[in-house]
Amino acid sequence: MTKIRRIQLNEREMPTQWYNIQADMPNPLLPLLHPGTKQPIQAADLEPLFARALIEQEVSTERYIDIPEEVQDLYRLYRPTPLHRAYNLEKMLDTPAKIYYKNESVSPPGSHKPNTAIPQAFYNYKEGVKKMTTETGAGQWGSALSFATNFFGIECKVFMVKVSYQQKPYRKSMMNLWNGSVIPSPSNETNAGRAFLAEDPNHPGSLGVAISEAIEVAATNEDTKYSLGSVLNHVLLHQTIIGLEAVKQLEMTGDFPDLVIGPFGGGSNFGGLSFPFLRYNFTEGKKTRCIAVESTSCPKLTKGKFEYDFGDTAGMTPLIPMYTLGHKFIPPAIHAGGLRYHGAGAIVSQLLKDKLIEARSVEQTESFEAAVTFARAEGMIPAPETSHAIAQAIKEAMIAREEGVAKTILFNFSGHGLLDMGAYDEYFAKNLQVQ
Amino acid sequence: MTKIRRIQLNEREMPTQWYNIQADMPNPLLPLLHPGTKQPIQAADLEPLFARALIEQEVSTERYIDIPEEVQDLYRLYRPTPLHRAYNLEKMLDTPAKIYYKNESVSPPGSHKPNTAIPQAFYNYKEGVKKMTTETGAGQWGSALSFATNFFGIECKVFMVKVSYQQKPYRKSMMNLWNGSVIPSPSNETNAGRAFLAEDPNHPGSLGVAISEAIEVAATNEDTKYSLGSVLNHVLLHQTIIGLEAVKQLEMTGDFPDLVIGPFGGGSNFGGLSFPFLRYNFTEGKKTRCIAVESTSCPKLTKGKFEYDFGDTAGMTPLIPMYTLGHKFIPPAIHAGGLRYHGAGAIVSQLLKDKLIEARSVEQTESFEAAVTFARAEGMIPAPETSHAIAQAIKEAMIAREEGVAKTILFNFSGHGLLDMGAYDEYFAKNLQVQ
Repeated sequence: MTKIRRIQLNEREMPTQWYNIQADMPNPLLPLLHPGTKQPIQAADLEPLFARALIEQEVSTERYIDIPEEVQDLYRLYRPTPLHRAYNLEKMLDTPAKIYYKNESVSPPGSHKPNTAIPQAFYNYKEGVKKMTTETGAGQWGSALSFATNFFGIECKVFMVKVSYQQKPYRKSMMNLWNGSVIPSPSNETNAGRAFLAEDPNHPGSLGVAISEAIEVAATNEDTKYSLGSVLNHVLLHQTIIGLEAVKQLEMTGDFPDLVIGPFGGGSNFGGLSFPFLRYNFTEGKKTRCIAVESTSCPKLTKGKFEYDFGDTAGMTPLIPMYTLGHKFIPPAIHAGGLRYHGAGAIVSQLLKDKLIEARSVEQTESFEAAVTFARAEGMIPAPETSHAIAQAIKEAMIAREEGVAKTILFNFSGHGLLDMGAYDEYFAKNLQVQ
Repeated sequence: MTKIRRIQLNEREMPTQWYNIQADMPNPLLPLLHPGTKQPIQAADLEPLFARALIEQEVSTERYIDIPEEVQDLYRLYRPTPLHRAYNLEKMLDTPAKIYYKNESVSPPGSHKPNTAIPQAFYNYKEGVKKMTTETGAGQWGSALSFATNFFGIECKVFMVKVSYQQKPYRKSMMNLWNGSVIPSPSNETNAGRAFLAEDPNHPGSLGVAISEAIEVAATNEDTKYSLGSVLNHVLLHQTIIGLEAVKQLEMTGDFPDLVIGPFGGGSNFGGLSFPFLRYNFTEGKKTRCIAVESTSCPKLTKGKFEYDFGDTAGMTPLIPMYTLGHKFIPPAIHAGGLRYHGAGAIVSQLLKDKLIEARSVEQTESFEAAVTFARAEGMIPAPETSHAIAQAIKEAMIAREEGVAKTILFNFSGHGLLDMGAYDEYFAKNLQVQ
């Protein structure tokens, strides 16, 4: 009997629409508020920052939104991505659980991030935008946007959190190769950056700080738009291609997940995988548990408050209704740079408030322990962010063993760790802080 | 019209036998000679170094050899690999040529090397071997063998060419993660290593030197066998899974290649892709041109002599009938570490002598120029070795443009360059030597 380790879709089976969970949420989202007036924000307020098509998607309640042909075509450079059955890991854990993972690491930048970088670059290109700015933590998002803008001849400027810039030098090389330019943040290029450096010349940076810098550049330059790699509704919308493929792939196995697990920074990979499964909870009475896994060093979902807060540290964005640690919160310099964000996207926050999803947190050393177990069992080397989902999946598989229940667990292998090998060295040398 | 960019086989379509070109070569191979007696070598002479199953494969003339179930199962962690149509590159080059590439970079170690590492580890495990030694250049092979031996509980010791050890530190981290141990070569652990260090304390190392060290450890320890990542017949045999899949995938497109191109170090990825196509030249009168692409800094095929020579620098291996620059040749410290080998495998050498394949050489800076073009067109970032095949494929596509002929070109995307980003930095900084 051949064990089928990877379930592949062919290119013609790739979904051609994204799934918009706003159509099915029991409680609608609270509006974003204008940072000055504190009144619900208007589309026109966002136009200096974002392409119009993206602003429309941000507030749309259409259930399915067509993926433009040009975006589908570039998706096909790496999509559909494989769904793996982790037989070796199951055996190593001696669990009756079936463990599946969706492998988003096969994209050229190595993560799920191009799923939204490509459509964001495309819509900006269609609207005549010549330059884009963004922030990046560990570098996954900055490299994805550089990769995507390069296809459309758009200049890309990436503010990279300084501590990650120092830890992961090859990410800069990658962005440069795809014609992106990279600036360690906080920088001297913006008022916001200069203010943070004045407070602390050795400021390690954070996603919130880098967002402030990138937004300032976009807001003050007419030919430049801003792009965010997580948190916002249109970003999560684009990422649903992950879960939509996984639904089709699991249908081919006859399994349906009891648990869907994603690492959690701002919500894009967790939402991307889980929303197409949550849909069945809303519309067909399924009871899939969807678990967002954050870092204990940045615990907005498990220890934050649900309130209106800024998306960036300097307070330039609209006020977002979300779970947050406060926009001034600067997390410790963990290697999972993509999880170092003070808040959670509005959709995920509303779902958590309504108890329709769950949240857990994982410590840094625990995440690396899980990563090493996984790499030795399945071969693939996970990114530090991804390792948080793996740690939770392993815990759930051990619970299944204790309970003697053959649960089906699906997690998002959101990115590989090939540019994070220095972090593994530090883990083996016992140089990592626990949290 | 959907452009099909990637042709996927499902797991059940993966070939279950390797193709042995020795069954079809017009002229048989000359025998290996014993280094002491200079007489044709006997199987018993090789048993201190290699598993018996591998020695049998080395001299077999069976046309097809079954892939053991256990090996097929581990292949399915990453195989079948995709075949890509490089539409973006074709458009950028404005060529009528169709360009395809077989993507071997999707394996966890990032190259084609596990295709032989897995069966080598398996056969050794079956024969009760507890430890294996090997050499590695850029680290692709050492990480593949660490990855493979880890599944079978075999200890793996890797002698890594010192210049690459320094250039590519993350390769060591990767091998460690998969439980491999790594020693920069030449080292103080062997007589051979100590002799090279006595000659030159700053010896940069070479594949030939590292082979001498790894062989010495295997020859002097009863529980230890040696493993080679290229050159030998059984290695090329295992790699034919690449070309066998590509034949099936191209059948699905209706195309057949006029040109098959692989980078050339010792022959494993070139042979792996091209032999299943050469078979049609021998048996069905096809005229596919197969081109091995070496580095101009290590030009054994284009400037070497066909003669009996040692496979290693210290002169411990059998004498191999091959194109060689002499076993004392130490190539310059180019980034394509996998191409820094003085000789060519016996099969490829015989085929070249018989004018059944062709050889070309590419300069280092030319290979990086091609790599950058490719990465900006197709997204994927090539390993420096792979970039040599890309450079040749681009040249052939430009010739096709001049001639106005819609040739079909297939090349082996043998590995990604994510652990070689430092080399790209040096290329952009214009710090690379031309050759």
